[in-house]
Amino acid sequence: MSTDQIRVNAEELRAFVATVFEKLGVPSKDAFTTADSLIKADLRGIESHGTSRLPRYVYRVENKLINTSPRIKIVRESPSTMLVDGDNGLGQIVGVWTMDRCIEKARSTGICMATVKNSNHFGIAAYYSMRALKHNMIGISLTNSQPLVAPTFGKQRTIGTNPISVSVPAGREKPFVLDMATSIVPLGTISVHAKLKQPINENWAVNKDGAPTTNPEEAEKEGALMPLGGPRITGGHKGYGLSTVVDIVSGVLSGASFAVTVGSPFEHTISNIGHFFAAIDIQAFRPLDEFKSDMDELIRTLKNSPKAAGQNRIYIHGEIEFEMEKNRIEHGIPVHEAFAKDLIDVGKKLGVDTRFLEKKEKK
Amino acid sequence: MSTDQIRVNAEELRAFVATVFEKLGVPSKDAFTTADSLIKADLRGIESHGTSRLPRYVYRVENKLINTSPRIKIVRESPSTMLVDGDNGLGQIVGVWTMDRCIEKARSTGICMATVKNSNHFGIAAYYSMRALKHNMIGISLTNSQPLVAPTFGKQRTIGTNPISVSVPAGREKPFVLDMATSIVPLGTISVHAKLKQPINENWAVNKDGAPTTNPEEAEKEGALMPLGGPRITGGHKGYGLSTVVDIVSGVLSGASFAVTVGSPFEHTISNIGHFFAAIDIQAFRPLDEFKSDMDELIRTLKNSPKAAGQNRIYIHGEIEFEMEKNRIEHGIPVHEAFAKDLIDVGKKLGVDTRFLEKKEKK
Repeated sequence: MSTDQIRVNAEELRAFVATVFEKLGVPSKDAFTTADSLIKADLRGIESHGTSRLPRYVYRVENKLINTSPRIKIVRESPSTMLVDGDNGLGQIVGVWTMDRCIEKARSTGICMATVKNSNHFGIAAYYSMRALKHNMIGISLTNSQPLVAPTFGKQRTIGTNPISVSVPAGREKPFVLDMATSIVPLGTISVHAKLKQPINENWAVNKDGAPTTNPEEAEKEGALMPLGGPRITGGHKGYGLSTVVDIVSGVLSGASFAVTVGSPFEHTISNIGHFFAAIDIQAFRPLDEFKSDMDELIRTLKNSPKAAGQNRIYIHGEIEFEMEKNRIEHGIPVHEAFAKDLIDVGKKLGVDTRFLEKKEKK
Repeated sequence: MSTDQIRVNAEELRAFVATVFEKLGVPSKDAFTTADSLIKADLRGIESHGTSRLPRYVYRVENKLINTSPRIKIVRESPSTMLVDGDNGLGQIVGVWTMDRCIEKARSTGICMATVKNSNHFGIAAYYSMRALKHNMIGISLTNSQPLVAPTFGKQRTIGTNPISVSVPAGREKPFVLDMATSIVPLGTISVHAKLKQPINENWAVNKDGAPTTNPEEAEKEGALMPLGGPRITGGHKGYGLSTVVDIVSGVLSGASFAVTVGSPFEHTISNIGHFFAAIDIQAFRPLDEFKSDMDELIRTLKNSPKAAGQNRIYIHGEIEFEMEKNRIEHGIPVHEAFAKDLIDVGKKLGVDTRFLEKKEKK
């Protein structure tokens, strides 16, 4: 652990964040859910989508860019589909509301698919897809996001990093949990390299002329991220296509914003983000035990596949995150001092006890 | 056009291929469908999945590795889901049978999702997803395939190039048609480079030690393809994850083969390939005119996005293929002389008139 980090107990941190949201007028249950999503991101090692974003949430709620008492409603419905209006609520609240109804509907029809409009940044996509696991269902969650990626042969930020998450239960093995942006890296990775003055991989981003760049400042200030695959020669058009699919089913199909019109959580605008959720009941297709046994076999086949020189392990998606979560529940979440200070500032402003953060701060 | 190619009329070629399948005992309607799929691939420029494969199909049918009179049946069904047993029929027949029923079911419930077991190589995935377009639906088709790709940090062919196709209707613009393997390139591209003794891109494949290689022969003979994204640093774990998702919903969920057990169409074995199809009725979510108008806007936004230096066009997925199809319907399908000879050999063996191929052959 780096010396400028402190370890914070996950439950204390969750309670703190929940209280912050309550102080902002978010109903208790919703405050807990939102806090839980942010702490889950920290636990799983996706810090970019965790409590480091709390000041941003506070800003947006205080400035009424997010509605703390949304009247989430189903606009159109069939036995297996829903169009949901999130009424500009917190993405987490809208997301959980919709995913849980999706799971309920899939229980009777085998599958349910929902699109959502008028929502906000919902944190990590896996938070929703994983809710299907304990119901023995496959969960899917997608969302569009503010433009950061250049289409193949383009140079401007035109489409989001639009993530794809798919969670699948297994038997004796841990569930398969894919949660990936459709860009190679998030903008945050470029920013970190810029701060540390480290060059970036030439496939990650383009400069203002649309040429690959290894200069993180150029990429961050005036460039754009490259889609998964990088340039055309290594399949970047495929990542661009996947990002477009996510935008279509999350944004266009729901009537939310899409492409360049999606609001950024870092700007003083309403986001009108669109999401997509689906739940697939495995038992509509196969007996559960057969499915789980085959999932175990697939997972073991992949893990036992011969390793490349210098490698000693092949990972299944979600595996690294499950191990990290276990470790961080036991040993605490590492929080960089700069972020701890941000959290303390938020707490002090809103009158929420921050001693659990202070007492561990290095003097 | 290269000088060792001839131009063949698409309808003549389709009729020829259909007659070949009829001679092999495939019922007329099925023979036409299979031929249509192969010609569609040639028209769209995906020659690797077109009539160049005909000798392989003939071999498999003659050797009873494919069942020409399958009793395709629904094993499990709910209003929005199906599990289909393809009875080892031609992938095209099983695919069309299932996709068309999916579309029919989606008409009444908003969405239908089907998984298929006991099937065979089905040609281009877009052939099925595109069937949804004229019904104003979004079509999805996925399939697993024989192991060719190494998982991230692995070195052995463990998982397929498992393609993803999503087709979405637009208004005045052409439909969006994504059809992509989850590897960077197909093995065929490596083989072509090997034949031409041209180095391959270092992200396309690994050698027998799992190290990136630019040597196409090494990659082809004893290496493995890299998943979309290439090595870990440029997001290869994401392509590996997508390939796994396709295998799960096509193979594991249906009870078909998966990972290393999927049969290759180039080997003397039953394939037991698994497919996944879905149809989403747009009108279950939004009025059709609104959706199509927003699709047009999304497409124009992407196409009008500023171009990278040296580029003058940004493409929408499917656009290149629509233009190629139009050109090839008008001017004929270019067929390499070596492949024309293969087709003539097939025709002569089965007593099918091949004069339309011969008369255009260069002397």
